[in-house]
Amino acid sequence: MTIFRKIIDGEIPCHRVYEDERVLAFLDVNPLSRGHVLVIPKEEAATLDALSDASSEAIGRVLPRLCRAVVRVTGCRAYNVLQNNGADAHQAVFHVHFHIIPRYADQGSETGGGLGIAWRSMGFDHGAGAALAERLATAAAED
Amino acid sequence: MTIFRKIIDGEIPCHRVYEDERVLAFLDVNPLSRGHVLVIPKEEAATLDALSDASSEAIGRVLPRLCRAVVRVTGCRAYNVLQNNGADAHQAVFHVHFHIIPRYADQGSETGGGLGIAWRSMGFDHGAGAALAERLATAAAED
Repeated sequence: MTIFRKIIDGEIPCHRVYEDERVLAFLDVNPLSRGHVLVIPKEEAATLDALSDASSEAIGRVLPRLCRAVVRVTGCRAYNVLQNNGADAHQAVFHVHFHIIPRYADQGSETGGGLGIAWRSMGFDHGAGAALAERLATAAAED
Repeated sequence: MTIFRKIIDGEIPCHRVYEDERVLAFLDVNPLSRGHVLVIPKEEAATLDALSDASSEAIGRVLPRLCRAVVRVTGCRAYNVLQNNGADAHQAVFHVHFHIIPRYADQGSETGGGLGIAWRSMGFDHGAGAALAERLATAAAED
């Protein structure tokens, strides 16, 4: 049982931002920046590929308004939405969670630095890409 | 007009992975790793806070199956879902897009390194956190 399950069940308190039948949002208590929010499904699923369409759809539905709330209340000028799957992809709690991470012009001790991103793009071969896209399209269509 | 608008309109080709009434998914041609997929709404919106609930919900609905397709076809053992808002948050094309970025055990020239993440958490004050959560909850509820 993860800590997020205990938060959903009310065994561990949280600073709640939003809740509906399928979704809970609350402040991350190890924030990367001020106003760092976690959005989680109530459904038990470790990674996004294991989550039901209905729960993922419910998260999608509330993300814009939660992002607006973060922008309006914190005054951040930019933000990242990040969802990690697997320990190698920086997942630490094995219950699906979307991070909303504000980024501030003034990255001081009050606001935090936000998400650090290193963008190292590689080459792309269009022949191999076309074949890969076809395999992905087939896999998605047959799902 | 962004390059993604031209891709949606078919003026620029793409390696398509998925399409429905509201959503298009295709391979990123500047990938961070093999199988790096972009998922975009057909609706015009620069950032997630400006996107309609319906479009965001439609993206949410297809994310699990697209993630499964990526995992199954590429064999990656982990992946990140990332959506950037604002130039300061690493957004380069100002049309909402979700990245699905695989991470491989073997991060070679064929597979790529994936998303580089620096996680620098800051302190958290529960008194200030409670007040902030209340303001966020009010903003979300009044939206």
